Amino acid sequence: MRYTLYYWPGLQGRGEFVRLALEEAGADYVDTALGKGGGIATLNRFLSGKSVRQPPFAPPFLGAGKLLIGQTANILHFLGPRIGLAPSAEAGRLWVHQLQLTVMDFVKEGHDLHHPVSTALYYEQQKKEAKRSAKHFRAERLPKYLGYFEKVLERSGGAWMAGKRLTYVDLSMAQAIDGLRYAFPQTARKVLKAHPRVAKVHEAAFSRPRVAAYLASERRLASNNDDLFRRYPELGS
Amino acid sequence: MRYTLYYWPGLQGRGEFVRLALEEAGADYVDTALGKGGGIATLNRFLSGKSVRQPPFAPPFLGAGKLLIGQTANILHFLGPRIGLAPSAEAGRLWVHQLQLTVMDFVKEGHDLHHPVSTALYYEQQKKEAKRSAKHFRAERLPKYLGYFEKVLERSGGAWMAGKRLTYVDLSMAQAIDGLRYAFPQTARKVLKAHPRVAKVHEAAFSRPRVAAYLASERRLASNNDDLFRRYPELGS
Repeated sequence: MRYTLYYWPGLQGRGEFVRLALEEAGADYVDTALGKGGGIATLNRFLSGKSVRQPPFAPPFLGAGKLLIGQTANILHFLGPRIGLAPSAEAGRLWVHQLQLTVMDFVKEGHDLHHPVSTALYYEQQKKEAKRSAKHFRAERLPKYLGYFEKVLERSGGAWMAGKRLTYVDLSMAQAIDGLRYAFPQTARKVLKAHPRVAKVHEAAFSRPRVAAYLASERRLASNNDDLFRRYPELGS
Repeated sequence: MRYTLYYWPGLQGRGEFVRLALEEAGADYVDTALGKGGGIATLNRFLSGKSVRQPPFAPPFLGAGKLLIGQTANILHFLGPRIGLAPSAEAGRLWVHQLQLTVMDFVKEGHDLHHPVSTALYYEQQKKEAKRSAKHFRAERLPKYLGYFEKVLERSGGAWMAGKRLTYVDLSMAQAIDGLRYAFPQTARKVLKAHPRVAKVHEAAFSRPRVAAYLASERRLASNNDDLFRRYPELGS
């Protein structure tokens, strides 16, 4: 099956969670953010087109045969067993999906700290509020989430979040940690030292041969301040 | 199967999305927020207990035989086909789940407007920021979400979000609209007038005999300011 990934060009964003899974699996996929005929016009045909029967609310979305699947965690839930990155039994699938939803919650909080008032405003319009928000994120929410992921790893019975085999949620957590290291390098260093299993998953997932090859390729965009995690030194480091 | 719903006592919260599905289905379930032996101590055994192999990050979570399932949308995804509130075929299940995840995003934005800086702070500590945030929520995010849900209903081929049969996401959207009406009664009146299909789902879902009986019972808690949507007149009406 050839998949089509629809996402905004110019940033890793939520599309990257799907991309990393597809890359690790060596799956056959077209990335509209990169290829010809892609870009925002293609996205808008699905977002605003009158004939899309099941329109997505926002990118990313995935084309798979006749299916058009939206919401990052839903896409991965669908893909997981098909590309060998989730258990096929229901109980295991639900657990990996539950973890993925929690990773997505973490990522959203990591994003919202620089958009505390509204995602409809620019960062520059909510800088003062963002300073307060970032302080609380770093002091309270970040250790709460990483403490949870560390606990999950302690009890998983293996080196990965759901046990002895890598699943897509390991790649997503690694990507979230990568974003955190870009946004708050010093904070990340400290918090990863305190959560060694989480740090290990980041290293191990990003060292997988196919993932490492992708990360070293031109297709992997550099972290930037249009992304989920952003580097604004005035919010702390 | 007897299910056990674990949730905080004293508020509808995210537990209510699960409760409404269980009530509509006439399912057999124990609600630890209400019953004896329930309450916060029971929750904490799962959240902090050392022997929980797959610990949830936060309530609600659902006990189903040996399974313990967390994340509201994940719980409903599991329950849906089992209690007759989602299609059993994968494509239909994925679509309903995708919509549910979007309803949860909407609800989170409805909550975060009065906690823009941090959920770790009280509303009173972020009142000024909340005023700005509420303004943008009402002016931009609210019409964006309701416009999306209206479009989904227009194209669904039936009166409900996924077509001719009620699914759990209709109950969840009705609950979200109910929260909105509590928080911003005047805004809700206007926006529902502009989105008549969404208004209709709210009315029709909350008029289902079992749902109506539940809503009229003592078990349905009144909306209050510990909940997701809150009434602070200074944030607008």
